Amino acid sequence: MDYMQKAINEGFKGMRANEGGPFGAVIVKKTQSKTKGVETKIIAVAHNTVLKTNDPTAHAEINAIRKATKKLKRFDLSDCEIYSTCEPCPMCLAAIEWARIKKLYYGCTRADADKIGFSDKVIYDEIKFFPKTKHLKVIQVDREKAKALFLEWENKKNKKMY
Amino acid sequence: MDYMQKAINEGFKGMRANEGGPFGAVIVKKTQSKTKGVETKIIAVAHNTVLKTNDPTAHAEINAIRKATKKLKRFDLSDCEIYSTCEPCPMCLAAIEWARIKKLYYGCTRADADKIGFSDKVIYDEIKFFPKTKHLKVIQVDREKAKALFLEWENKKNKKMY
Repeated sequence: MDYMQKAINEGFKGMRANEGGPFGAVIVKKTQSKTKGVETKIIAVAHNTVLKTNDPTAHAEINAIRKATKKLKRFDLSDCEIYSTCEPCPMCLAAIEWARIKKLYYGCTRADADKIGFSDKVIYDEIKFFPKTKHLKVIQVDREKAKALFLEWENKKNKKMY
Repeated sequence: MDYMQKAINEGFKGMRANEGGPFGAVIVKKTQSKTKGVETKIIAVAHNTVLKTNDPTAHAEINAIRKATKKLKRFDLSDCEIYSTCEPCPMCLAAIEWARIKKLYYGCTRADADKIGFSDKVIYDEIKFFPKTKHLKVIQVDREKAKALFLEWENKKNKKMY
């Protein structure tokens, strides 16, 4: 199956329903077995729903990761691959890394997204220059007070790392 | 009120309930009026719930943004400020930028988080070297096919930008 085409179709669906921008994503799981070889199964198909939900984090890739982890009942998607119709913004790219997905296929570029009015490129620059960001004022406070959290975590027994 | 202390307390609550790592965040809204001057109101308080929900995107800042936008019924938080107990990871930093929050206060650093086993620093590096990432294989495909989405968006009438 053409997973990128499926992601593109999903993007059209979301845009035409006015649920969000023109973006779609598909997550597939790869299973290797001795008898059947590598099997690929679709786990999640999602589009951008920022306008529908008013959630600025509801990008296609994030929605797909949320659906896939819910379905598989685990936060680790290291046996999965993601197809995205556009180069992920830094939020989605980091989410893909947190989910431990090992392979990303993408279509359009951040420059293509920039041309139709999306800020992916601007935000990549903001991250590069952090904490000297243009659009966000950044102030560090109370590091010592906040470190009490990390100290308790370090000493916590039977904690689950992620 | 000490908003950073409130974020720290929230981080303790989540960690002790085994809902996620030792992270908390608070979003406040600033309102300027002629009679009362600047008023600051808490809109959302959240902690990391990655372990509770199996959602790897459920960091404290993302959860706080989702709560705040739901409460205010808008994706634009440009009248808000965020307090986070730790320097946001790239996912959360980009989410803060997408939400158009104008000011970020943070406590611990990405190096502090790294020391207790969280990958924030690694992921910052991955983004810097994208698409030559170490942990993720990146492949561009079907750009021309995917651009049909952007062409339709460009020509779409009455679309809402975000």
